[in-house]
Amino acid sequence: MTAVGIDAVEIWTGKLKLDLPETFAPQKGDDPAKYTKGLGLRASSFPDAYEDIVTMASNAAYKLMERKGLEPDDIGRIDVATESAFDNSKPVSTYVAGCLEEVYDEDFHHANKGERKFACIAGTQSIDDAYNWIKAGRNRGRGALVIATDTALYARGDAGEATQGAGAVAMYITEDPSLVELSHAQGYGSADETDFLKPNQQFPSVDGKRSVQVYLSRMREALEDYESVAGDVELDGFEYAPFHTPFPGMVRKAALLAYRHVVRDTEHEDALADEIGRQPRPGEFEDDDAYQEAIREYMDALGDTEQYQDWYAEVIDPTLSISREVGNWYTGSVHIARMSALLEAAEEGTEMAGETLLVGSYGSGAQAEIHAETVADGWKDEIEACDIYDQIEDRYDISFSEYEQVHDRHNHEKRVELEPFTQPEGEFVFDGWGPMNERKYTFVE
Amino acid sequence: MTAVGIDAVEIWTGKLKLDLPETFAPQKGDDPAKYTKGLGLRASSFPDAYEDIVTMASNAAYKLMERKGLEPDDIGRIDVATESAFDNSKPVSTYVAGCLEEVYDEDFHHANKGERKFACIAGTQSIDDAYNWIKAGRNRGRGALVIATDTALYARGDAGEATQGAGAVAMYITEDPSLVELSHAQGYGSADETDFLKPNQQFPSVDGKRSVQVYLSRMREALEDYESVAGDVELDGFEYAPFHTPFPGMVRKAALLAYRHVVRDTEHEDALADEIGRQPRPGEFEDDDAYQEAIREYMDALGDTEQYQDWYAEVIDPTLSISREVGNWYTGSVHIARMSALLEAAEEGTEMAGETLLVGSYGSGAQAEIHAETVADGWKDEIEACDIYDQIEDRYDISFSEYEQVHDRHNHEKRVELEPFTQPEGEFVFDGWGPMNERKYTFVE
Repeated sequence: MTAVGIDAVEIWTGKLKLDLPETFAPQKGDDPAKYTKGLGLRASSFPDAYEDIVTMASNAAYKLMERKGLEPDDIGRIDVATESAFDNSKPVSTYVAGCLEEVYDEDFHHANKGERKFACIAGTQSIDDAYNWIKAGRNRGRGALVIATDTALYARGDAGEATQGAGAVAMYITEDPSLVELSHAQGYGSADETDFLKPNQQFPSVDGKRSVQVYLSRMREALEDYESVAGDVELDGFEYAPFHTPFPGMVRKAALLAYRHVVRDTEHEDALADEIGRQPRPGEFEDDDAYQEAIREYMDALGDTEQYQDWYAEVIDPTLSISREVGNWYTGSVHIARMSALLEAAEEGTEMAGETLLVGSYGSGAQAEIHAETVADGWKDEIEACDIYDQIEDRYDISFSEYEQVHDRHNHEKRVELEPFTQPEGEFVFDGWGPMNERKYTFVE
Repeated sequence: MTAVGIDAVEIWTGKLKLDLPETFAPQKGDDPAKYTKGLGLRASSFPDAYEDIVTMASNAAYKLMERKGLEPDDIGRIDVATESAFDNSKPVSTYVAGCLEEVYDEDFHHANKGERKFACIAGTQSIDDAYNWIKAGRNRGRGALVIATDTALYARGDAGEATQGAGAVAMYITEDPSLVELSHAQGYGSADETDFLKPNQQFPSVDGKRSVQVYLSRMREALEDYESVAGDVELDGFEYAPFHTPFPGMVRKAALLAYRHVVRDTEHEDALADEIGRQPRPGEFEDDDAYQEAIREYMDALGDTEQYQDWYAEVIDPTLSISREVGNWYTGSVHIARMSALLEAAEEGTEMAGETLLVGSYGSGAQAEIHAETVADGWKDEIEACDIYDQIEDRYDISFSEYEQVHDRHNHEKRVELEPFTQPEGEFVFDGWGPMNERKYTFVE
């Protein structure tokens, strides 16, 4: 069967940086470690005054098309995943096509455009749609442009305020991809949950504690469902595990659970047994409470073992490097986790071609999806073209009062003017509102 | 190759009826013919106080599952298409699954749930996703539940107010379907247009004149794109042409254009030549203005010919019967047009198995899609199970002042209490708001 997967990726971060330990923590009267250690975050990205989900998506897509030498005719569909949409009818992908048509001679009238919404998992769902479209043989030799774009804002003062972020990830999905091949097998864990939602609101209502539980429960289900079709996942079967990263601390919890699941009944559990015992099994306890208590104790002990910590440092920690600097990008989050890991591999000179990634996507509300990816031969050229760390470095570092203005600027209920902090160059910018209340865009040379 | 298509359909109309000639026209001081002849509409459906896009979707889905004897395990994905969503993050499909889980012993944790948005075309896009998923071999023997659900409301006093409507269409997409097989070939016409949008609004901003032009232009592109892969569409090649129907008058315009396109350079054009001449060709005119003027004259004459009118009465008019009674259902509209035609065929005793439908979907913003469907052997049993005309008949006929209350009840910016006009029975109902501002639902025996 033909390999289908991600041929190329371009990442675009919002151009402003809110430093959490230096700028946010002092203002909140908090110990900076609450953010850097607890959440695992050092900074959030924000869009400048002329940026939004359309400009970030269009700029990522334009960069991708230019680097890969693509013309509109190479692209048969444009799917945007977002939970930051500003229109209840017209999809962001039409705006993106409109932007790109400003700079290309040809148009995208032949391209199927769409928009998916399911909290943070819609980017992965859009990749799936593109995979299925190609596998179904309906792509006429064209690829799909999938873009995950979000401005993750919380109400001021909300517990989630420290986990904000903004950016876009553009991905080109094709046959015989250069970066990663997607597995045919997928696993799902999906339930109707009220953990995080935005009922006629731009900013979320969040039940933080429930949200963590739901993330872990759905991931467990998805992993079990994946194993039911792909066979048991083995600890040595994957090099990295990029997971949805609302903040790195969440992935720390998920990784420990996944590790316990994967090593059960293997030599890895045996190797740990002398130090912390074997994993508790339900049948060994009088009731569920006793079992749960034993599990908690086992997990605490497991997290402290050298065996687990070595694995975490090798397989999980490298997926979190970008996230730590930019915050939560919602739909883009798992896709920057993948890039983060591959950037580290390239930096360290690890040969990844043929190696496996275990990818865990998640969206509140709630659904998890697990699939595997096989790194393709062309991965290193792709990764070396990625300039996200330069972009991160180049962000304008905003003060707290500037942050307050930026938050207002991107609040859909306000229309505040704000002088940009940076200068746009060779990119699409927001250009005001038209007569039907539509957002307008232009290309700045 | 395996046939993939629509195995079963259930339609659920909002339970209230606003009579346009009897109730709406007098209040507006209008000639009733403005609605019945101009727009081609007799009534609009509205949701009762306890109905919304979730209850209509869930009730249509439940009815479908019950009639087909389906269990949750038969359903591998639930995709909802809507442009009436009340949440920017949590998809309607999770609420629908939550409702259905109240009445089935098993759950939908294994099912991939999604939500698509692109004005009125997202229902067809969701069917495509399901088709591709099955063709890609990822469905594990399961089918997909695709639900188009909308409450199409305009601001009070808007020109679109007479074209409102509310209802849901649930469709089960499978291999070897009982109702229609979908063509592999599809044609697209898609452009970034500002004809109809809802920028942070529930009610649309509409440029009515532009909207008509855009509908026609995108449909023409989609038809040409379809012909580029499927070969020329021939007038005798399809029995019905269900199109997206914002109001039947729109389809009258589109049908005339489609007819002109399809008969060009065929014996049908020759047969008309004595009466109205041959179609004008661009090369025969001094400039484009003269050509366009000639086209307009030709079209006016074409519309008056018996040959065209007979074709329209046979192929197009039967697709409009439900729409005339319920108004615009946005994402569901093209799917009730299909059912409308097949209901008429069954009524008249026409054997449809093996016959072709030419289906034209459309969403403002804007995109058209054309594909063909082959009616399957089991079509008649499916169609005979459809009770939409009974539902239409059973609606509660609201007065104008009741209409005003109903409009307010479904306005997202208001929270008004309203005594229901009808009595729910054996169905899901809206049950108030929860602590996170979430909408809650319950099943009423």
